[in-house]
Amino acid sequence: MSKLLILAHNMDEYTRRIGQADLPYLEIVTSPAECDIVLGEPRMVREALPHLPDLKWVQSIYAGVEPLVDPTQRRDYVLTNARGVFGSSMSEFVFGYMLFFKKRIQERIQAQQARKWDHLDGGLLRGRTIGLLGVGSIGSHLAKTAKHFGMIVRGFTRESEGCPHVDKYYHGNNLLDFVGGLDYLVSVLPRTEETNQIVNAELLDALSSHAVFINVGRGNAVDESALVEALEQNKIAGAVLDVTVQEPLPEEHPFWTTPNLFLTFHTSAMSYPEDITELFIENYKLFIEGKPLKYRVDFERGY
Amino acid sequence: MSKLLILAHNMDEYTRRIGQADLPYLEIVTSPAECDIVLGEPRMVREALPHLPDLKWVQSIYAGVEPLVDPTQRRDYVLTNARGVFGSSMSEFVFGYMLFFKKRIQERIQAQQARKWDHLDGGLLRGRTIGLLGVGSIGSHLAKTAKHFGMIVRGFTRESEGCPHVDKYYHGNNLLDFVGGLDYLVSVLPRTEETNQIVNAELLDALSSHAVFINVGRGNAVDESALVEALEQNKIAGAVLDVTVQEPLPEEHPFWTTPNLFLTFHTSAMSYPEDITELFIENYKLFIEGKPLKYRVDFERGY
Repeated sequence: MSKLLILAHNMDEYTRRIGQADLPYLEIVTSPAECDIVLGEPRMVREALPHLPDLKWVQSIYAGVEPLVDPTQRRDYVLTNARGVFGSSMSEFVFGYMLFFKKRIQERIQAQQARKWDHLDGGLLRGRTIGLLGVGSIGSHLAKTAKHFGMIVRGFTRESEGCPHVDKYYHGNNLLDFVGGLDYLVSVLPRTEETNQIVNAELLDALSSHAVFINVGRGNAVDESALVEALEQNKIAGAVLDVTVQEPLPEEHPFWTTPNLFLTFHTSAMSYPEDITELFIENYKLFIEGKPLKYRVDFERGY
Repeated sequence: MSKLLILAHNMDEYTRRIGQADLPYLEIVTSPAECDIVLGEPRMVREALPHLPDLKWVQSIYAGVEPLVDPTQRRDYVLTNARGVFGSSMSEFVFGYMLFFKKRIQERIQAQQARKWDHLDGGLLRGRTIGLLGVGSIGSHLAKTAKHFGMIVRGFTRESEGCPHVDKYYHGNNLLDFVGGLDYLVSVLPRTEETNQIVNAELLDALSSHAVFINVGRGNAVDESALVEALEQNKIAGAVLDVTVQEPLPEEHPFWTTPNLFLTFHTSAMSYPEDITELFIENYKLFIEGKPLKYRVDFERGY
């Protein structure tokens, strides 16, 4: 018999959904002392870690698991994160903003307010080039949507080249080649040592002045002062930041008023219990069969 | 030898592109009297109609050919319109606006201006229902994009049921069934007698209060007073009108200031010479082989 502890704000909904699935050999418990499986929010799970003597497996309900891969924390269990479920929401978000710029939606609203018949064509995404910083399960989904819209897709990864929707891959020292000529640069990078300030002044200088940068990964990937400067000097056309180094953003942060910078408050991909429950069920079946779980996190690598 | 007259504002670009294609037995001429083929804008072609004694075929560079199907005009030639080329631009436009609403882009901009961390989730297109008024080549492309985003697709047509991306078809008297429960209603209908004011008070009443209506077809499909009333009384959540009965919209028209109504000034699908040239070449090859042309307009039906 396995015993599952749920540590999430919407614990009731998870309890109901998993209960309805009627999984074999599984009991949902509320006491940390007796559970061997935890499903939950990384921050809440971290607090419980010292009180979980029988812990074998943690399924995170988020993709980012920074609180759990912190080197000060125990690593004597299998950690799986929520991958594979955010691709479609991320695509809606990223293409929503790309089309917001391309279709000149803000300019059309202003024209209407001025009672001006604004017939200027903004052009198409079709034929434009998108560069994906990171091509895991989310990046692959973005690549697929980009192809649906007839775009050219570049991918920057450590070494993987597995996504069939990427036209050209770049790695390692080819970062400036990768960004040269991009119309859109999208970061889906996780927070690790290696991704710190990868979007810095040099990279921003290498972007076209009409390029738009979208960050739906983690805030650490961006040198925030360099981004403010690039936008103030019109070195790039715009930025959409779903993530920042500090969240919520401090009230005195320059991002609130940086020109052509759009804040979206970490909403690009919400964690929906229906998706996470499906993922948990899939992994639980592997767990009781003693098979390797899906989306296992490498504690060293951090994702 | 065939003689082609080009009647379009960007005539030079068409001349260059078609010249480069080096088509057999084709000469580009500038005199109406000697041409047998015309490529052009319907309005400009209509003016030339009395001066084209040898006319055999007109290829319109637009989808809408109202000036040419008018019953007062001659019909002793083959008229083909530009179909099949607007699907991708229309998809960018329609999904740009659907995502603009769904991702709460305007609300996020306002939150940023107020330095407010607006974490409210707007939800996903995935799982929502779109209804297409008209499922020709543009509607089919919209249906395909809707499926890419995981939506449920309903189609309303006269009788055709040919698009594999439509989940359920409606015809004739089932218009109110068709709109009941829709999240998005998109009209791509051409201007004909039958489409006049199809979006009227009764239909708007049958829509959900959270529904958004998008018109990328023709303005005649809408009872404009009924739409203003529906928006003023929050009977529907929003409307995006790329087309109106009168264009440009008269300065005193209520649409300029109707709440939650967005005007886009007939920009949803521009006619790009690269696309139209490709279509012309394809049809020209059929023409010289004496085969039936693609996208032939039925003068009686009007499209």
